[in-house]
Amino acid sequence: MNQFLTHSGLYTDFYELTMAQGYFRAGKANKQASFDYFFRKLPFGGGYVIHAGLSDLLAYLTEMKFTSDDLHYLKNQRFQEDFLDYLEQFCFTGNVHAMREGEVVFPNEPVLRVDAPIIEAQIIETVVLNILNFESLIATKASRIRSACGKRSFMDFGLRRAHGWGGLQASKAAMIGGADSTSNVLCGKLYEVPVAGTQAHSWIESYDSELEAFHAFASLYPDLCILVVDTYDTLRSGIPNAIQVAKAMEEKGFHMAGIRLDSGDFVTLSKKVREMLDKAGLGYVRIVASNQLDEYEIERLLSQNAPVDSFGVGTSLVTGDPDGALDGVYKMSSFDDQPRIKISESADKILLPGKKQVFRSVDITGCFMEDLIVLEDEVTAQNDSAGKETLLSPVVTKGSVCFAEYKLTEISAYCMERLSKLPDKLKKLTVSGSYPVRLSKKLETLKKSMVNTILQNIHEKD
Amino acid sequence: MNQFLTHSGLYTDFYELTMAQGYFRAGKANKQASFDYFFRKLPFGGGYVIHAGLSDLLAYLTEMKFTSDDLHYLKNQRFQEDFLDYLEQFCFTGNVHAMREGEVVFPNEPVLRVDAPIIEAQIIETVVLNILNFESLIATKASRIRSACGKRSFMDFGLRRAHGWGGLQASKAAMIGGADSTSNVLCGKLYEVPVAGTQAHSWIESYDSELEAFHAFASLYPDLCILVVDTYDTLRSGIPNAIQVAKAMEEKGFHMAGIRLDSGDFVTLSKKVREMLDKAGLGYVRIVASNQLDEYEIERLLSQNAPVDSFGVGTSLVTGDPDGALDGVYKMSSFDDQPRIKISESADKILLPGKKQVFRSVDITGCFMEDLIVLEDEVTAQNDSAGKETLLSPVVTKGSVCFAEYKLTEISAYCMERLSKLPDKLKKLTVSGSYPVRLSKKLETLKKSMVNTILQNIHEKD
Repeated sequence: MNQFLTHSGLYTDFYELTMAQGYFRAGKANKQASFDYFFRKLPFGGGYVIHAGLSDLLAYLTEMKFTSDDLHYLKNQRFQEDFLDYLEQFCFTGNVHAMREGEVVFPNEPVLRVDAPIIEAQIIETVVLNILNFESLIATKASRIRSACGKRSFMDFGLRRAHGWGGLQASKAAMIGGADSTSNVLCGKLYEVPVAGTQAHSWIESYDSELEAFHAFASLYPDLCILVVDTYDTLRSGIPNAIQVAKAMEEKGFHMAGIRLDSGDFVTLSKKVREMLDKAGLGYVRIVASNQLDEYEIERLLSQNAPVDSFGVGTSLVTGDPDGALDGVYKMSSFDDQPRIKISESADKILLPGKKQVFRSVDITGCFMEDLIVLEDEVTAQNDSAGKETLLSPVVTKGSVCFAEYKLTEISAYCMERLSKLPDKLKKLTVSGSYPVRLSKKLETLKKSMVNTILQNIHEKD
Repeated sequence: MNQFLTHSGLYTDFYELTMAQGYFRAGKANKQASFDYFFRKLPFGGGYVIHAGLSDLLAYLTEMKFTSDDLHYLKNQRFQEDFLDYLEQFCFTGNVHAMREGEVVFPNEPVLRVDAPIIEAQIIETVVLNILNFESLIATKASRIRSACGKRSFMDFGLRRAHGWGGLQASKAAMIGGADSTSNVLCGKLYEVPVAGTQAHSWIESYDSELEAFHAFASLYPDLCILVVDTYDTLRSGIPNAIQVAKAMEEKGFHMAGIRLDSGDFVTLSKKVREMLDKAGLGYVRIVASNQLDEYEIERLLSQNAPVDSFGVGTSLVTGDPDGALDGVYKMSSFDDQPRIKISESADKILLPGKKQVFRSVDITGCFMEDLIVLEDEVTAQNDSAGKETLLSPVVTKGSVCFAEYKLTEISAYCMERLSKLPDKLKKLTVSGSYPVRLSKKLETLKKSMVNTILQNIHEKD
């Protein structure tokens, strides 16, 4: 029943469909509108966001449909025949500009722009937000964990705590943000990324003794043997048994890959375990740690020289703890070739009117200096100067994807490359300053004049 | 490509498959094992959890499969032919006992028990955790928001901030926990629950004036007209225009359903708005509020007598903010008819051995008094006494669902009924005490004796 989840036209807020029918019946369905996707607040107290989710969004846009079953349901919800006929034929025909997936992005700048008949741009709103908000949040979280891990290995172990079917996107986004591998096999298959895993306590419990369980696993997986050592007692049972098994493996010409700590204080535990392993001549056996880790705990462990080689991170990664959501919004900036604006009680909720583009100034080494939001009609003049990158590129033209899509590993590599261009102070776990994002004079002037016109209209009523 | 997400056998952690192949090759795949699903920590500082996700889990268990494409992928991951042949034929053949979906449950008690060949029980672990942890978290959050709203209406508006494809389950769980309606149309269709929505700022922006936009919407949706009033200025533009339109609607025999506040301070704003509407003779026009609401903010608003009739709750509801995850685990308690245990550095991580059942003592009015976890072989004696409910019932027998599944509205009604039986002090938003969950003497004795045996074995090695 749920198998069409990933391209159902009904995976949307009810009001998108009532408004779409409204535009349809008001005869303005085909008027061109532009919508910007952007966010206002940086998550995690950090200095940037990783833009992720574009490939899933484009797949949805090109595959979404309303089935006859869906239309039957909508008819019972009192939608009208002529609108349902329209939905039956629905396919997205508009244009989309977007920053490249994996890009480092900042508050209030358009990360994606949809130019389409208003009815289409409206219908896709909810899914644009659902996908980009979530995947960007998790990719950003992953990049922070990547940063804390430094050169140590970082594995996504989150699927069991991920939000239901969102777990596939969580793992994908974790890989974009810098995880080395994922436990999620479906993610590994679909996106050709490395999968990883160790062993569960149930394996140990299914044998009469821990030693027997370890020997059995080592003989089945001599190349892939990471033993979980805390089922009974890490230092008094798990590690002595693991050492005995590693020695037996050596006799057969194999090297145990590692042991996994899953409880206790990792600083003292990992130091003792390293000492025990080294003393037994097992300097090559790696120490994996997992259990309620996040970027702060990893930073703490490494600052105290915990000899952990590899971190398995689950819950905090895939839930984007503690923020849980990126506050991205999707707002109309132009209708029927006229710039549009919304103002608000709070000044930071005022929108930027008009079709826009974003330029990034970079220094001679390619490092990011500032972003400039401009109106699209300013683009020709400023486009080609050196040290200036144009961030929004066409990704969908007349409903069709118009660029060669990237593999997940390419998106991740791009993300790492771009992060390397961001000033270090903005990559700390907690950031005080902020990256400069400016408006062009023309955009600033347009915004002010539109706000003034609205305020005047309101005052006249008073 | 992702359309098989909801029944892919690969939607699992890699180690489930390596261990499954291990059991297979070690010749113990068909040994019977029992696993318990339970959680340790109550989320949100509250006094209970709502058990949710069972129906989605059962759908997965009966539909999951490994496609030939999946097997090809696993072959490239060096899984062996005989095991892949086994996976090709895989279907779950075991038994499942579970508490009824919508039940009020507590830490450390088995909420679901799987009795199956160990290979099957292991393969399904990740999805059991993924589904139950997430849906229970959201249903619990929803029940807290329901409680804060009292008799006011509560709508799920979360899809745009939900975690990707997990948004369908988020809305479903929100309905279980007590939302009156959801904005998620797919949820409405699949589970036959009410959908709701108002109108977006883009509708207003697509007209030259707010008044014109309101008139147009009212004439299209005279029965369903809720206007968003903060596009320009709530009190000076939105409400005066809404009043004008409501008056025009009255002349045609219609009643405006409501207005939606989406920014500003809701206490002062809603009071002023109510006053303005009432003064215009529009006492029937309801006030809807949405914007970063959660149970605490709703409680605050109502304690200050904010005249809000209906709350649209999004982000905090569908992300389970601030916890983001329920810490549920799935642990082996029995193997080959012998009870099993895992101990740990931390006493609260020690498992309860053996196949278990849970009884709930209720007083003469049906109110919950305490839960008692017993070993299954104690069941016959204690089963039928008055004032005692048996909470774990068979839901899957030999791989087939063995009860008449409930509709979502029935699950939600059951949840409300059960919550009414929980002492009030455990339903506060922040709870100090806890609900009593005890172990039977026999279970307590078994646990102690198994822990002692393990500790003795470890000491002997010292």
